[in-house]
Amino acid sequence: MSVILLTPDTDVVYKSENGHVIKLNIETNATTLLLENTTFVTFKASRHSVSPDLKYVLLAYDIKQIFHYSYTASYVIYNIHTREVWELNPPEVEDSILQYAAWGVQGQQLIYIFENNIYYQPDIKSSSLRLTSSGKEGIIFNGISDWLYEEEILHSHIAHWWSPDGERLAFLMINDTLVPTMVIPRFTGALYPKGKQYPYPKAGQVNPTIRLYVVNLYGPTHTLELMPPDSFKSREYYITMVKWVSNTKTVVRWLNRPQNISILTVCETTTGACSKKYEMTSDTWLSKQNEEPVFSRDGSKFFMTVPVKQGGRGEFHHIAMFLIQSKSEQITVRHLTSGNWEVVKILAYDESTQKIYFLSTESSPRGRQLYSASTEGLLNRQCISCNFMKEQCAYFDASFSPMNQHFLLHCEGPRVPVVSLHSTDNPAKYFILESNSMLREAILKKKIVKSEIKILHIDDYELPLQLSFPKDFMDRNQYALLLIMDEEPGDQLVTDKFHIDWDSVLIDTDNVIVARFDGRGSGFQGLKILQEIHRRLGSVEVKDQMAAVKFLLKQPYIDSKRLSIFGKGYGGYIASMILKSDEKLFKCGSVVSPITDLKLYASAFSERYLGMPSKEESTYQAASVLHNIHGLKEENILIIHGTADTKVHFQHSAELIKHLIKAGVNYTMQVYPDEGHNVSEKSKYHLYSTILRFFSDCLKEEISVLPQEPEEDE
Amino acid sequence: MSVILLTPDTDVVYKSENGHVIKLNIETNATTLLLENTTFVTFKASRHSVSPDLKYVLLAYDIKQIFHYSYTASYVIYNIHTREVWELNPPEVEDSILQYAAWGVQGQQLIYIFENNIYYQPDIKSSSLRLTSSGKEGIIFNGISDWLYEEEILHSHIAHWWSPDGERLAFLMINDTLVPTMVIPRFTGALYPKGKQYPYPKAGQVNPTIRLYVVNLYGPTHTLELMPPDSFKSREYYITMVKWVSNTKTVVRWLNRPQNISILTVCETTTGACSKKYEMTSDTWLSKQNEEPVFSRDGSKFFMTVPVKQGGRGEFHHIAMFLIQSKSEQITVRHLTSGNWEVVKILAYDESTQKIYFLSTESSPRGRQLYSASTEGLLNRQCISCNFMKEQCAYFDASFSPMNQHFLLHCEGPRVPVVSLHSTDNPAKYFILESNSMLREAILKKKIVKSEIKILHIDDYELPLQLSFPKDFMDRNQYALLLIMDEEPGDQLVTDKFHIDWDSVLIDTDNVIVARFDGRGSGFQGLKILQEIHRRLGSVEVKDQMAAVKFLLKQPYIDSKRLSIFGKGYGGYIASMILKSDEKLFKCGSVVSPITDLKLYASAFSERYLGMPSKEESTYQAASVLHNIHGLKEENILIIHGTADTKVHFQHSAELIKHLIKAGVNYTMQVYPDEGHNVSEKSKYHLYSTILRFFSDCLKEEISVLPQEPEEDE
Repeated sequence: MSVILLTPDTDVVYKSENGHVIKLNIETNATTLLLENTTFVTFKASRHSVSPDLKYVLLAYDIKQIFHYSYTASYVIYNIHTREVWELNPPEVEDSILQYAAWGVQGQQLIYIFENNIYYQPDIKSSSLRLTSSGKEGIIFNGISDWLYEEEILHSHIAHWWSPDGERLAFLMINDTLVPTMVIPRFTGALYPKGKQYPYPKAGQVNPTIRLYVVNLYGPTHTLELMPPDSFKSREYYITMVKWVSNTKTVVRWLNRPQNISILTVCETTTGACSKKYEMTSDTWLSKQNEEPVFSRDGSKFFMTVPVKQGGRGEFHHIAMFLIQSKSEQITVRHLTSGNWEVVKILAYDESTQKIYFLSTESSPRGRQLYSASTEGLLNRQCISCNFMKEQCAYFDASFSPMNQHFLLHCEGPRVPVVSLHSTDNPAKYFILESNSMLREAILKKKIVKSEIKILHIDDYELPLQLSFPKDFMDRNQYALLLIMDEEPGDQLVTDKFHIDWDSVLIDTDNVIVARFDGRGSGFQGLKILQEIHRRLGSVEVKDQMAAVKFLLKQPYIDSKRLSIFGKGYGGYIASMILKSDEKLFKCGSVVSPITDLKLYASAFSERYLGMPSKEESTYQAASVLHNIHGLKEENILIIHGTADTKVHFQHSAELIKHLIKAGVNYTMQVYPDEGHNVSEKSKYHLYSTILRFFSDCLKEEISVLPQEPEEDE
Repeated sequence: MSVILLTPDTDVVYKSENGHVIKLNIETNATTLLLENTTFVTFKASRHSVSPDLKYVLLAYDIKQIFHYSYTASYVIYNIHTREVWELNPPEVEDSILQYAAWGVQGQQLIYIFENNIYYQPDIKSSSLRLTSSGKEGIIFNGISDWLYEEEILHSHIAHWWSPDGERLAFLMINDTLVPTMVIPRFTGALYPKGKQYPYPKAGQVNPTIRLYVVNLYGPTHTLELMPPDSFKSREYYITMVKWVSNTKTVVRWLNRPQNISILTVCETTTGACSKKYEMTSDTWLSKQNEEPVFSRDGSKFFMTVPVKQGGRGEFHHIAMFLIQSKSEQITVRHLTSGNWEVVKILAYDESTQKIYFLSTESSPRGRQLYSASTEGLLNRQCISCNFMKEQCAYFDASFSPMNQHFLLHCEGPRVPVVSLHSTDNPAKYFILESNSMLREAILKKKIVKSEIKILHIDDYELPLQLSFPKDFMDRNQYALLLIMDEEPGDQLVTDKFHIDWDSVLIDTDNVIVARFDGRGSGFQGLKILQEIHRRLGSVEVKDQMAAVKFLLKQPYIDSKRLSIFGKGYGGYIASMILKSDEKLFKCGSVVSPITDLKLYASAFSERYLGMPSKEESTYQAASVLHNIHGLKEENILIIHGTADTKVHFQHSAELIKHLIKAGVNYTMQVYPDEGHNVSEKSKYHLYSTILRFFSDCLKEEISVLPQEPEEDE
């Protein structure tokens, strides 16, 4: 659910369960209806945002997904009081399709992006000002991400940032001129369907270049470039984070292409001068590069997580306080937390109480709890969420109001999610904004899946294996098993987060046990576990998953003849590597949009784990599913891929199939024409039925056919 | 096998069973070894041709298929005596890849085509002369076909013709400038695979324009255009046939775009003047438009087949003799044959005996026999091949030597093919050039498939149904059935031609009965049966095939629960239409590269049967598989398609799948990445196994599982 905490700290705006947009005064509990749910219907709009002055709403319609986060849309501005409507169009353009449009941070200021250029309007009545002119469709991007930045670097399509006073805008210019383009074919919808192409740097190929600018919006606009640290000037680098720390200062993180040197600078946007505040290096690669440091108001200190060694268990992310000596600019560091657990996110620094608020895995690596810690003295640490709805909540996210007077607590599991609004002074005083009552009721009617976590000891690690059992599970029966792979390295499958997916159906109706195992390469359990995959991608994960399977095979309730595996993207890659390994434990497997060769995948991803392919030829070959493909011979494989997948190109499955055909290996294929990495809503039902049918067929108990006795003559 | 009958009439050149190229003197039986089989290995060459003076061989290597017939290759010229070798290259080009290269008709003259321009060499030592300069790769074609002419009009990639004395060359210039291009994507073989595009006029789209030129090769070259008949000048038309009838005259057939008016002209290539000799019109469409008329040496008469009405059974193709009055240019016609059978091909006119030689279906619509008929008096007709190897041959093809002294007889079935060389005077005197002994032995070792033909009466037609039975067939058992569709309208499935295909395996190992039925729309049984599909494509064929199935269901040996269907291209289209029809008789079906919407298919094909789509919107919709797709709901369908199919685009299957996904219909898919309409040799095994496994699984007898009795307590 979308909730916006506003200035003054007493107001929030949210979309209620019945679809109205409401302003709530936390102190008085008074609500104001800003937008009726019917307005969305009238404009066929599916996204909205309210102007900072709460007078207008920006409504997006005709939304068309581009990549993971990005989409184009057309926009109207709706006057809440008069119900007047304006279309949002660049000067001299009609019925425009925009790449982005949003309010700024003050009054009615808004920006939008059209043909890769940024346009600014000080208020809804004024005419638009074009802030950039270098934009070139599909080649030079201003203020929005190209494919690589969106999917692999920023994890967002937004590549611009407002100063707190709304007087300045920082934005990236991403130049893909030299990046090779990939063609996405089109098959349907026209007599002569035309494909489209877009820059996509595969491992070792030319990357986009990046520049960071700041434009001031008051008075005659003036654009200034913020320069990378000297040591990066003649090297390739990424910008992974930009954040305003005052009305004129930004903090920027620069990361070299091999992703093992990262420099944090603070830039004075009035002059363009940047000064290095912190440099990190790694023998493997640097993680958490999107993390935004939290600054004190005067800029004299900031908080950020850094890897801290915890004895033999390696490094864990912990909060460090960086104090900047005002004159010498020298920096002293104080570590505020430590232990065999991770600080996941720093949320706020309350200057009045000198407390820092953050989420951590201290209570359990599978959970997320909200903590506060003092930044002074004994650094007293306190869990704020630990006792909140203890029965149903162990996995929280949170966000704080501008003045830290209130915070939103998102209980995300293990039971049905709840959103509540708390007072920082007295967290026990709260207000439920979203109870998900309909979902709760729906879930209650279903059979409850029993879930159990077992800890496996592999090498020196303790790794969690989650088993979901059918309702009527009895351990004297034998059950089929489905092992599900994670979609990205560094993610976590075994958590207390609420989730319900197609595999629940398999548990319910086909009596299958579903297993999820976080082996080496998974996240939030310290950096050592994560970084074990460096230069060994596709090999340690396979070992660990196989170890988990072997553990399960020792359980009396697992039918060793009915094991199966599933994975998507990187998970499809690991599943394929497991299926082609020498040990033939699985009866069948399904892979969706599998990566089959890291050389064909995005530079920033492949190089992070395997280095540059030119130097690491053999590393890449060893990590390729296509190499020694005959290992896949005996299984029953279902390969699923959309032909318009812009993340993992259909190329991956095509190469896989070509190799399988050559090796004479059987497989089943499901192609989704002109569908992307995530199939469209209208194809989802088909996708899930296909996967379920495949596993249901493969995992069903073999009915022993009684040999028919020969008829005897009488 | 390739055999060339030479001038003088006593010589033939052929490639023997062990791969040597041999010249044989028919009179003396003396053989000369022209080229050893090892030469092919040395040059990795797979195609060869011997120069008219028998001194050189042109060897093609690095052959890459383009469309159905066309290919690119590199060439060397090999001196048979000195074993010297030259590469064949255009001036100032090295390692060239040519679109065509071949000897002319005299001495060592040769032409080749490079970048869509024709080059000529009077002999192998002289330098090349470029005959055209208008060629534009992929857009303007000189001397070779574009996709449409190759696949749908000429049925050949060769679009040039030598005058008998080798002094002139007629060639087509096909201009695709305005034809929309189709993109064929590429998925494998490179980091960034690039698709290719080529002009492909779909139904109702802009067609290529065509011009016919003659260039004289002796002296300064001079090119002259042969103009279409006046009535075609402002209309769209095709040129479907060009043939030299003397050293300076050509006969040309022009066909209007709707394919119902055709004009035969004889053109004087020294002046460019063409005179109309014959005009044909049809209420439906004109067939046999590639037929080459046979002229007498002096040009005063020619022979050609024309539709002749045979009472209620409609028109059949029969030979007509056209006599041209030398002065008035008036033409009188005499019909030389008649009856309820078809003249398939006119082979030769022997002026000395005034006899015409031809192939016909007189003995059986499924057979082809060589006949002669007198062109004078009582037109005595005589079967020449009827008694030749009567046990094993009923389906012949034949070709005559330049002076008609000898003819080659290709016995093409029903048993293993044989090629023999006969004397025209005494056909019983012959010489076997190819006995296919290895194939014969291999076949003898296999089980013999029993085959039976039943004649069904549908409306007023007698239509043949061929059944192939497993060896151990007993009519008290019940068998599964596979019904196979024809690949093109106007073809014939039930013939005496030898063929062995994947379905034989199904008969042999899975005890399946295979049925082939030539219903309305099939060829060689008179024009009425063929033309029944006009504007009703996809409906009458379905009716007839269903009638055949219903006939089979009355047979005690057919298991009505195990019926299946197969088709490729147009056959895949008919199979899909049958599967989606209301009567659910089939358990499963497989379609390879199916046409699913005629609007997406080639102009010349779709318009021939359905007219222009603009006018015939509802006809096209009724003929589309995609319309009312939910009819496909209950069957088990296997869709197979190569993604680089240039004939039936992958688009057809993509649209089909998209509609099936939307309708929630199950199907199985086999994609061959970057493979064409006919999959490559290396994928054939996989293709056949996939099809066989599918039918084998679908058609296997259900084993009735005995219900397990509950264990009783003792």
